[in-house]
Amino acid sequence: MQIKLIPVAAVCDPKALLGTTAVVFDVLRATSTIVTALAAGYRRVYPVAQASAAVALARRHGFVLSGERGGEKIEGFPHGNSPLEFAGGPGTGSSVLVITTSNGTGAIRRAASASPVLIGSLLNARAVARAALEQGQDISLVCAGTGGLFSLEDILGAGFVLLEILQQLNPGGGEGKSPEGPAMDDLAITACGLARLYHNDPLAGLYAGQHGQRLLKLGREEDLRWCAGLNRFDIAPVFTGEYITLVPDNNG
Amino acid sequence: MQIKLIPVAAVCDPKALLGTTAVVFDVLRATSTIVTALAAGYRRVYPVAQASAAVALARRHGFVLSGERGGEKIEGFPHGNSPLEFAGGPGTGSSVLVITTSNGTGAIRRAASASPVLIGSLLNARAVARAALEQGQDISLVCAGTGGLFSLEDILGAGFVLLEILQQLNPGGGEGKSPEGPAMDDLAITACGLARLYHNDPLAGLYAGQHGQRLLKLGREEDLRWCAGLNRFDIAPVFTGEYITLVPDNNG
Repeated sequence: MQIKLIPVAAVCDPKALLGTTAVVFDVLRATSTIVTALAAGYRRVYPVAQASAAVALARRHGFVLSGERGGEKIEGFPHGNSPLEFAGGPGTGSSVLVITTSNGTGAIRRAASASPVLIGSLLNARAVARAALEQGQDISLVCAGTGGLFSLEDILGAGFVLLEILQQLNPGGGEGKSPEGPAMDDLAITACGLARLYHNDPLAGLYAGQHGQRLLKLGREEDLRWCAGLNRFDIAPVFTGEYITLVPDNNG
Repeated sequence: MQIKLIPVAAVCDPKALLGTTAVVFDVLRATSTIVTALAAGYRRVYPVAQASAAVALARRHGFVLSGERGGEKIEGFPHGNSPLEFAGGPGTGSSVLVITTSNGTGAIRRAASASPVLIGSLLNARAVARAALEQGQDISLVCAGTGGLFSLEDILGAGFVLLEILQQLNPGGGEGKSPEGPAMDDLAITACGLARLYHNDPLAGLYAGQHGQRLLKLGREEDLRWCAGLNRFDIAPVFTGEYITLVPDNNG
């Protein structure tokens, strides 16, 4: 098995993902928010790249609308991109969420030449590692990045999933050095190293990058604390090409 | 001061380096070999991208010729790219070396829109950090990569230089979190993390990447051990645009 890490989804060649299982990361905050919403009871999340298309989709069906640009809620949108806004579940409202964000929603759509496309974060690292391994294919770890640039927190998220993959392949330890360990590219190995460095304090890893620092300045410290909750949820969301769900065969 | 890390020199925009001090890394092995040769008494090293041009230059002047492709000595060349071949100094032969390698020599030439261009490795991390800081400019850490791809050992080399830079800026500790610390991009922050992870065992870092593993298979374990010698030499070689030397103003 080969595992490769794509540091910036916006500049990845979709052909490179063919025949692989993708796990997409926008740790601060789109994929953490999507995982949180689905864990809390939302049934579907539609990732939409354009804000206007998100508004139209939500209005047409009465779905919940959320949108973020540059770390802040899009003006006029009822919800932004904080996982805490969705942690309480849908309540009596619609259980379908439409989300448009600066980097993450585009990254999920760009990963769609892979099959399946799983949604990764620190929150569900172990579950998504298990789901990826169950596919028995090569694995592409697709990082959203920030503004077309390498983003530390996405690499860190990929690293935590990699540590879980290595652990599940080789429960006795040995860190993938056993003969049956996966072949990882140097970016994947670097991600593992970063996850080992921050293993006892994932929040420090989220604080370390530029985007984490920007969110702190915007007053989103509680979001970072939430997103650092390693293995909080035992779910592996799948992007069907249209929406993200826990039960892709359910038409309800 | 801004510090950015360019992960693969071959795809970097030369304009991004204008007005900055560059430090170039091809840790396995071109820049480690160049640093070793200059520390051992070679006066100049000419980095040449094309093998035929290297042969012509060495023949014309009676210089020492070395060349490597894919980790192995170029057939017919008297020397390959092992630092151990040059650690004994030039002896009674020419004290000028011509070197052509798969990735490193091209990376050095691509960095030439920066000024100055320094040659970095684990062997001279502290000295090159000091020399870069003395310039008082923004710093570009230019990694050669391997075959156009991200290469762990170059990021690690850049990380060791960054740790020295942070230490020299803030000798009391605090890891650059003081107000006067440099602004680093997320790749530079990742490189720091990797260097922290391998600080007590740099050799393990060189073993971790794919290129290190390939060199091990080619029987170059002693090269890796040599290249892992953190701060073995107190020199900061400069690329003049033509050759690399310790004394760029010396016309001899």
